[in-house]
Amino acid sequence: MKKDTKISNVVIKRLPRYRRYLKELQRKGISKISSNEFSRLIGYTASQIRQDLNNFGGFGQQGYGYNVDSLYNEISAILGLDQEYKMVIVGVGNLGQAIANYTYYYKAGFVVHGLFDVNPRLIGIKINDIEVMDYENLVEYVEDNNIDIGIICTTKDNAQEVADKLCFAGVKGIWNFAPIDLEVPDHVAVENVHLSDSLHSLAYHMNRNGESRQ
Amino acid sequence: MKKDTKISNVVIKRLPRYRRYLKELQRKGISKISSNEFSRLIGYTASQIRQDLNNFGGFGQQGYGYNVDSLYNEISAILGLDQEYKMVIVGVGNLGQAIANYTYYYKAGFVVHGLFDVNPRLIGIKINDIEVMDYENLVEYVEDNNIDIGIICTTKDNAQEVADKLCFAGVKGIWNFAPIDLEVPDHVAVENVHLSDSLHSLAYHMNRNGESRQ
Repeated sequence: MKKDTKISNVVIKRLPRYRRYLKELQRKGISKISSNEFSRLIGYTASQIRQDLNNFGGFGQQGYGYNVDSLYNEISAILGLDQEYKMVIVGVGNLGQAIANYTYYYKAGFVVHGLFDVNPRLIGIKINDIEVMDYENLVEYVEDNNIDIGIICTTKDNAQEVADKLCFAGVKGIWNFAPIDLEVPDHVAVENVHLSDSLHSLAYHMNRNGESRQ
Repeated sequence: MKKDTKISNVVIKRLPRYRRYLKELQRKGISKISSNEFSRLIGYTASQIRQDLNNFGGFGQQGYGYNVDSLYNEISAILGLDQEYKMVIVGVGNLGQAIANYTYYYKAGFVVHGLFDVNPRLIGIKINDIEVMDYENLVEYVEDNNIDIGIICTTKDNAQEVADKLCFAGVKGIWNFAPIDLEVPDHVAVENVHLSDSLHSLAYHMNRNGESRQ
């Protein structure tokens, strides 16, 4: 496999989508697919798909197409989904609780170990058998339990402070739902889910009559 | 202002971000900003910013920079945020309830009018004074109330059927949280929030030591 240190973020963003379609093919019991069929299904050109996958060494065979299982497994490994991640959620309001439930029910490999909030009415309650702890104890907990990912579901005004604490305590990644761009050390990865930006993009496209799609 | 029918989606995706930073400047009472300062703040080059905004006619003045209020208002208008949108949420599980609360508390201009579910235990309960209605009545409600946006918070397996009903009933946009790519008529805009894809991108970047950022 080629060294993949300079892959553009746009390509990376497409990998989970490839994986999703491959999983769907697996579910339907399809074990191989031609590049043209795959292209029609996923909505990228066959040449685009080839280019994307060539970044990681390429997986198709001329005249055969793609082996669904092996491509699925390779993409999973590239994404780092062949290991388990320990996570904490900071901010257990509506969104935090929804994310806690979402990961609990749907996200094998991403396990929420701790929930944190400053609100005394939330501290002590349990969500899927995980107790909400006092935010004061965040750093100690993350350090002691080798937490990999911190999920920030606080307000905008508190998010940077939470990120600072999480980075200090040693997380390797932050999944940020607060509507702010965080500053973190270079070795920490950040992925933002900016709901508000997404809704605003939708408004734009609605006024342009749905001309453009993701 | 130039006609903006062929603006790339990448540029459109940056507009909400520009707007967010301009709002923050407003909050701090800053009324004008040089293109260099704005560039440092937002993390795009000054030339990138100029290029992006030139798509819409350009707003800066040589030697002056940007007027924060007027740029904020222009971008809001471009995004279509100078009007109100009527929305329904389909699927009122954890995520649907979180989105209902999120829009209720934070999203002026985007108003949830109806909530729908198939679950008899949810039908009849109220969230922020809005009653959860029977999914059976979705099409009639959307038609009668001129709903603009349908928010899909169902499972993957039900999402396409919900989208079909919403489109049939006349929505102009769909905000989709189900992990599936929807097929909709050309005149309907779709914006996806694929939480799972986002988490998988994070895993990738963590394993590459946070090398790339959004």
